[in-house]
Amino acid sequence: MQIYKAPLRDMRFVLHELLDAKQLSKLPGYEEATADTIDTIIEEGAKFCQDKLLPLNRVGDEEGCTYENGVVRTPPGFKQAYNDFVGAGWQSISSDPNYGGQGLPALMNFVIEEMVCSTNIAFGVYPLLSRGAASLIERHGSDDIKETYLPHLADGSWSGTMCLTESQCGTDLGLIRTKAVPAGNGKYSISGSKIFISAGEHDLSENIIHLVLAKLPDAPEGVRGISLFLVPKLSVNGRGTAAEVGSRNGVACGSIEKKMGIHGSATCVINFDEAEGYLIGDPHKGLRCMFTMMNGARLGVGMQGLALGETAYQSATAYAKERRSGKSLTKGTKSADVADPIIVHPDVRNMLLTARAYNEGARALAYWTALQLDLSTHHPDAETRRDADEIVQLMTPVIKAFLTDRGFEAANLAVQVHGGHGYISEHGIEQLVRDARIAQLYEGTNGIQALDLVGRKLSLHTGRLLRHFFHPATEFVETNQETEELKDLVLPLAKALEKLQQATLVIAQKGLGDPEEAAAVATDYLKMFGLVAVGYMWLLMAEKAVAKAADANGDARFYANKLKTAQFYMHKLLPDASAAFLRIMTGKYAAAQFNEEDF
Amino acid sequence: MQIYKAPLRDMRFVLHELLDAKQLSKLPGYEEATADTIDTIIEEGAKFCQDKLLPLNRVGDEEGCTYENGVVRTPPGFKQAYNDFVGAGWQSISSDPNYGGQGLPALMNFVIEEMVCSTNIAFGVYPLLSRGAASLIERHGSDDIKETYLPHLADGSWSGTMCLTESQCGTDLGLIRTKAVPAGNGKYSISGSKIFISAGEHDLSENIIHLVLAKLPDAPEGVRGISLFLVPKLSVNGRGTAAEVGSRNGVACGSIEKKMGIHGSATCVINFDEAEGYLIGDPHKGLRCMFTMMNGARLGVGMQGLALGETAYQSATAYAKERRSGKSLTKGTKSADVADPIIVHPDVRNMLLTARAYNEGARALAYWTALQLDLSTHHPDAETRRDADEIVQLMTPVIKAFLTDRGFEAANLAVQVHGGHGYISEHGIEQLVRDARIAQLYEGTNGIQALDLVGRKLSLHTGRLLRHFFHPATEFVETNQETEELKDLVLPLAKALEKLQQATLVIAQKGLGDPEEAAAVATDYLKMFGLVAVGYMWLLMAEKAVAKAADANGDARFYANKLKTAQFYMHKLLPDASAAFLRIMTGKYAAAQFNEEDF
Repeated sequence: MQIYKAPLRDMRFVLHELLDAKQLSKLPGYEEATADTIDTIIEEGAKFCQDKLLPLNRVGDEEGCTYENGVVRTPPGFKQAYNDFVGAGWQSISSDPNYGGQGLPALMNFVIEEMVCSTNIAFGVYPLLSRGAASLIERHGSDDIKETYLPHLADGSWSGTMCLTESQCGTDLGLIRTKAVPAGNGKYSISGSKIFISAGEHDLSENIIHLVLAKLPDAPEGVRGISLFLVPKLSVNGRGTAAEVGSRNGVACGSIEKKMGIHGSATCVINFDEAEGYLIGDPHKGLRCMFTMMNGARLGVGMQGLALGETAYQSATAYAKERRSGKSLTKGTKSADVADPIIVHPDVRNMLLTARAYNEGARALAYWTALQLDLSTHHPDAETRRDADEIVQLMTPVIKAFLTDRGFEAANLAVQVHGGHGYISEHGIEQLVRDARIAQLYEGTNGIQALDLVGRKLSLHTGRLLRHFFHPATEFVETNQETEELKDLVLPLAKALEKLQQATLVIAQKGLGDPEEAAAVATDYLKMFGLVAVGYMWLLMAEKAVAKAADANGDARFYANKLKTAQFYMHKLLPDASAAFLRIMTGKYAAAQFNEEDF
Repeated sequence: MQIYKAPLRDMRFVLHELLDAKQLSKLPGYEEATADTIDTIIEEGAKFCQDKLLPLNRVGDEEGCTYENGVVRTPPGFKQAYNDFVGAGWQSISSDPNYGGQGLPALMNFVIEEMVCSTNIAFGVYPLLSRGAASLIERHGSDDIKETYLPHLADGSWSGTMCLTESQCGTDLGLIRTKAVPAGNGKYSISGSKIFISAGEHDLSENIIHLVLAKLPDAPEGVRGISLFLVPKLSVNGRGTAAEVGSRNGVACGSIEKKMGIHGSATCVINFDEAEGYLIGDPHKGLRCMFTMMNGARLGVGMQGLALGETAYQSATAYAKERRSGKSLTKGTKSADVADPIIVHPDVRNMLLTARAYNEGARALAYWTALQLDLSTHHPDAETRRDADEIVQLMTPVIKAFLTDRGFEAANLAVQVHGGHGYISEHGIEQLVRDARIAQLYEGTNGIQALDLVGRKLSLHTGRLLRHFFHPATEFVETNQETEELKDLVLPLAKALEKLQQATLVIAQKGLGDPEEAAAVATDYLKMFGLVAVGYMWLLMAEKAVAKAADANGDARFYANKLKTAQFYMHKLLPDASAAFLRIMTGKYAAAQFNEEDF
């Protein structure tokens, strides 16, 4: 059975004890983000997700979305849950307060995103896309566009999408064929067909605002000739009050996809037939604007990985405590029962702790990155903003790929803990695997994330992005090598960090002469980077846990478990970094020697 | 799209060039297993699987089995395919010729099993179970039972099952509750409920022969009190000619499971209500008999892993050659096209070659083990038989677990190569993932395989099983360390082999004092063992490829690719052994320090 209670104690530990998130309340615009407000938000969010979204997760998978004559219906209960979600204000907690948002830190949104997706990732796709659309319009829309669209996106009466992919291209957007022709009055006529459009059509909101990549008649070839357009499903006049929402625009849903998972999320073919649209940003510069949305979405997808990893851990743990099979091998613990709960077995523990150590480490890394995102937009000091933004840039591909890979792994471990019962649909565990699988694919496959990390982020500003991570990490391990309570944890991380830096140098050097050398080890490098980054988070958490252990006030077990889990991470998970290192060192040769016809 | 052509060239390489399989024709009883016969069988088998089974794989997934009032219907086309399958004699190629079988080597069965499951694993479950039932009856049945049941299992008019699991226990069979009460005339009355019974009820055969674990009234507690019974769905009189198949026995299918994958395979709840059954083997010794079937089934499940890995590789390769995205980074290869096929990208190649290097290495390991199986039953020399049997015992858990883990990995890599398209059901790639997932779970989870390897096989006969593998492998690497064409491959394997032996010693020593120390690293040890065993197969294949490269007669590319793939294996896959080694060295401590309430 899918089991989930929001890990509030761990969330508070990361938010308050590790990150001192109330520091955000000192930034202009974030005054309300006090520790109390933060706690209230996560507690109320937890209740909402547990009570309203989790009960719909199985039915969403079983019933899925339906398509008939261009109309898409979401699974039973989704519409009510959506109304409750936007009614309670969850859609807009970090949206611009000038346009109906609550203006709270993005960090809060990350925490809510985690809980939403832990309980119902298919549902979570709808608000995620709307938030992405809103943040793009906030950043790149004209005042008129902002005033017209943002309040409706904030209150959830309208929703948003991103329309990039076409049947012939996903990653390689230079190949898109959708056309935009100027139609006078600053409007454009958009024609073309987009596929894989999440939340492209549904019955949750009154209108759907598509953000569409298309080419103008005078567009240069390739990625330098892509423009961005806002295309509403229903035409909008004036400010879009009910009376001003006009007739159907030339936008139609042609079909929805039957997919491996996230059945409650409508994945649509959207056909634009001389649809009326508005240019966002400058002509031919649309890709850059779209990446505002894309980067936010990538971080959101990373959270989906963590989210499913958490549900997987909790569900598997509950089963392992209940299911009896075999007797414990531990001496002196023979119980009178014919069989012990399987949590006594070391192999089961290893599986559970693998999921847990990744989850807790990933949570720290993701929230820390979200904090940087808030610093990058709201800190008064320009250099602090720049540095924080660069950390976000560096960590975005890592969080997207590493967290979704680990989330998928955790989901599979949960199935394995359940044995044959994990394969049976009614228990809901195999759904976690099917749902988690998408996160490694959409918003840029994990291979694309690795190329972004190695091909762009490594070399940007002559390596300055990397230094934002390497410097404090190196300083921490150097300072704490002799710290009695930490040195057993510091030593393995210090070694892995050194190897990561060595790998970075090798890739930079080889890649300079031959970019294929870098591309060939990108996935291994990202994995190694993720392992070390999460490992560094474990050191920071362990440091706090050691400090708190003394005055724990009944919470001693929490801190003791943090230290034990940190140890498990260093003993059992970090070693994968050495295998990745060995692979990186052998470079491209083994695969490059094959000709295409050899395959 | 699912793409599959039987890899006949590679199969022939392993069968003839690596293993000299025609050596089997010199063994009494296997005289017909000449090179020509072997080739004819695999070619005809390939045609059958490609033409009859592959086209049913999607429909089997989409339509699945249906249950109504105790009647189970297999997907459209399965019945005809089954009739064709048994009509062509594929069911009984390695069955006892005294009872209607063809008496060919088990090795032939492995090859057919691979092709059947590459094209339709859900279909393959039915013949796999029947063969298991037949081999159990061949080994443990009375003459009367053999004469009555084996001819019908051989011609496929009847099929078989193994009924072990009950809702409260799968792995821990000591907990079963199904009862057997003597009913006079050597018959028993069986009552109880079994779950997860593959092929438990269906419309393919006229009768279904259940092999059922149950407890006699005087049974000792636990696994020492389990007996084995043959329980036919329809009562059988005399020799079971049509006129002699009687009325319905007290056996009924209560329901079928909705599962993640293998939808065409009926997974049944089977209720026994005072059903008439026959004791097989001695009272209370049923588990040992059942393991005849179970071990064969475990090897068969290992083949399922390889089988799906092969289809995953072929499907992903076809897509990677066709789909265009991005330009090659290789200097001097700029084509005029706006985008190159994605097979030019190093990350895509790494994914394809990972699947391929595991597949080809796994095929060698599995066929080699199958050859040992044939030596163990048909070689005139008792010591050769014993040694061969011990190799099979050692390799059974490795093949079951390592090959199914790698098959699941390959299926996921195929999805990743397809990007978002891999997640869409109509392309058939996500089905591979869902189908492959079961193989890690059934016939003993992969964690149980690891415990079998570490807890039983390592220590058996004071390590003699292990020496059957370590000695020749060590000798090979010592002999070839200076061989010019091989030494680059030998060196990494030599290191990994040394570490594996070191890990073996540590586990043996620690495990002696504390069995939990062994159990805690069992999964890592099995993985390391699998990596080294497959690596050793790669060395043996490379040696053959080097020798053949000179007189290749137009097949030079095949041998060159073998060597390249061997190199890829050593560069990119074997390194995982070092991570497993590091984990093994840290032992149980990290996980054992947690109390149950800490989870």
